[in-house]
Amino acid sequence: MNEWILAEGYRYAGVVSGLRNEPDRRDLALVVSDRPASGAGVYTQNRVCAAPVHLCRERLPSDRIRGIVICSGNANACTGEQGMQDARRMAELAAREIHCEPEQVLVCSTGVIGRLLPMPILEAGIPLAGRALSADKKGLNDAAHAILTTDSRIKVFTRTVATAAGEVRMTGFCKGAAMIGPNMATLLGFIVSDAAVKPTDLQHMLRTAVEQSFNCISVEGHTSTNDTVLLLANGTGPPLAGHDLTSFAGAVHGMCADLARSIAADAEGADHLVTIDIEGCRSDEEARKIAKTIAESPLVKSAIYGADPNWGRIVSAAGYSGVMFDDTDLTLWLGDMPLFRAGMPLPFDAKAASAYLKHNREVHIRLRFTLGPGRCTWWTCDLTPEYVRLNADYTT
Amino acid sequence: MNEWILAEGYRYAGVVSGLRNEPDRRDLALVVSDRPASGAGVYTQNRVCAAPVHLCRERLPSDRIRGIVICSGNANACTGEQGMQDARRMAELAAREIHCEPEQVLVCSTGVIGRLLPMPILEAGIPLAGRALSADKKGLNDAAHAILTTDSRIKVFTRTVATAAGEVRMTGFCKGAAMIGPNMATLLGFIVSDAAVKPTDLQHMLRTAVEQSFNCISVEGHTSTNDTVLLLANGTGPPLAGHDLTSFAGAVHGMCADLARSIAADAEGADHLVTIDIEGCRSDEEARKIAKTIAESPLVKSAIYGADPNWGRIVSAAGYSGVMFDDTDLTLWLGDMPLFRAGMPLPFDAKAASAYLKHNREVHIRLRFTLGPGRCTWWTCDLTPEYVRLNADYTT
Repeated sequence: MNEWILAEGYRYAGVVSGLRNEPDRRDLALVVSDRPASGAGVYTQNRVCAAPVHLCRERLPSDRIRGIVICSGNANACTGEQGMQDARRMAELAAREIHCEPEQVLVCSTGVIGRLLPMPILEAGIPLAGRALSADKKGLNDAAHAILTTDSRIKVFTRTVATAAGEVRMTGFCKGAAMIGPNMATLLGFIVSDAAVKPTDLQHMLRTAVEQSFNCISVEGHTSTNDTVLLLANGTGPPLAGHDLTSFAGAVHGMCADLARSIAADAEGADHLVTIDIEGCRSDEEARKIAKTIAESPLVKSAIYGADPNWGRIVSAAGYSGVMFDDTDLTLWLGDMPLFRAGMPLPFDAKAASAYLKHNREVHIRLRFTLGPGRCTWWTCDLTPEYVRLNADYTT
Repeated sequence: MNEWILAEGYRYAGVVSGLRNEPDRRDLALVVSDRPASGAGVYTQNRVCAAPVHLCRERLPSDRIRGIVICSGNANACTGEQGMQDARRMAELAAREIHCEPEQVLVCSTGVIGRLLPMPILEAGIPLAGRALSADKKGLNDAAHAILTTDSRIKVFTRTVATAAGEVRMTGFCKGAAMIGPNMATLLGFIVSDAAVKPTDLQHMLRTAVEQSFNCISVEGHTSTNDTVLLLANGTGPPLAGHDLTSFAGAVHGMCADLARSIAADAEGADHLVTIDIEGCRSDEEARKIAKTIAESPLVKSAIYGADPNWGRIVSAAGYSGVMFDDTDLTLWLGDMPLFRAGMPLPFDAKAASAYLKHNREVHIRLRFTLGPGRCTWWTCDLTPEYVRLNADYTT
């Protein structure tokens, strides 16, 4: 927290509204830009998407966003027309605190699907959050806590970008620990910056960055109804153009990668953060397909949990990814140990391979094909009995 | 076993060869047709497929099959040219016992991927199996045991089909408990019949039957390298044509459904057999996509294990299946309890829904769309901590 350098012109709050029915559990956050900001968003591709996702889609991109109101514990998904009315009401209540139009406010929710929001709690809670707004790190820290569900910790990153026009700052925070399957954002992520950037530029750089970050992680491959990543740029700092814009886009990408990786690392019940590097495919898209299939195989994930170097599961997962290849095209490494080359198993020290999995919290799997320049880096976790237990009684 | 009525003209053996290195564990099976049989096969769609799958693909369809040799404990997959030579050698050794050409013998293997077969064991074991061949139920029982890996029980079904040409019989057995993700057969399955049917007819009816049976089950969605379903018809009984052929095809379908369902019911670590009925889609293919996505969601499966009626996970899984629909098109039932209709959650008794999941080993999920006549029935299981434990140290 001490090392955070916050973007200027933003205030934050995270309060205990009672939505989660847990004393002292913050569950309602507010992010406010002191001046109208450019805003961009990327959302879940799930056909069943939550009311707040519909609302953000309607309102973005925009050049006049003033705030984001976020609740955790209830996803406001599968809630029909009442859900849409409730999401709009959340924006109205927040706008009253911020002194802006309701249309200048974005809404996000995360939690259990299929329950109507308890609006009396929000009617009281949002004014409470309004009164708690603060520009300091404590405010951000509270907001970062208030958006969590089963996460074990907050996920906050800050970045400073040097540009010819001067320094600009970026503050990012996110939540997510399960129901993580890419397509799109797979979580809630918020990045606010004090740069001045046009909404269309912002939208383009966010979409590009998400493609190689939030869309390259999975926990179990279940795409959520509520996934949303929002990016604001309020122009408290200098306007960016040309090369500066490219630097800024690079920083957005780096921020997205940090946030996304932090989600895979905090996955429910996980013992390992697994990085899967795929190279030598015909295209990046093919490399993504192979990475995703390996990352979502419960057999691969169980073997990593058990420190079992059962590499046949990795090769066979690549084989059912839908990408055409022959096994003679493929070389596989676990860490720096080659296990399979050109269709043939290599002799390897199974004890050393098992020890590698056992003693490292972060492990690497690398597959090299001989088909072209396509590549992808993907982050996932292992599958543990604890994951099953955590998800066996989430609502009851 | 007493009620089995076996197809005529077949002999079976299942012996302890030592492949599995477990005393008294049968691991090598032989199935022999006393006369040349029509043979058909359907195989895994995995790009990385085992040597015996290549061999069966080369040799089928055929009108002169005399035998099938099957080993368990080693998949002979990812074993390169040596693996092909070993599979061919297995056929040669079996042919010597059966007194036929090597090309008249099919080969299947199942077990760990990426290890060369210990051929000295098979050189001794296959003659042992040859000496043990028997036409009685004990022989079939031994063979059904010898093909198992992590299965908890044998899976054998017999059927008798009355035709105008006389009665024909069908004997089926299979194995499979994990690495079950359809596309194609997802396991080893063997169906032998004493009917006389042309290879091309046999191939057509097997492919059709597999599509709605073995391709409608999944345990965790990991498509194996070795999946094979073989169907023989040796003409000890009458030749079939016209309506009789249709009856026979229906029996093949029924047999495949029985075998496939038995695999989902015996899934590794599973507490529940889950039947998912999808109806009202634009096409059967769309219904299959939705069923498969729900069946393979670890979140849905963990909730069923925990008797948590967390139906939002089911609706959201349908939403990321890739099929276009609006949530207002959808009604969802758990057992006979409606939970979600036309985009809105219905009030329901969560205790009763939880009790339904808790007290029934077989549970039903039904989704009805309003888009067309497409439908699908899919079988899967829940995800348990035991599944993870079983798969955490399979090779080590």
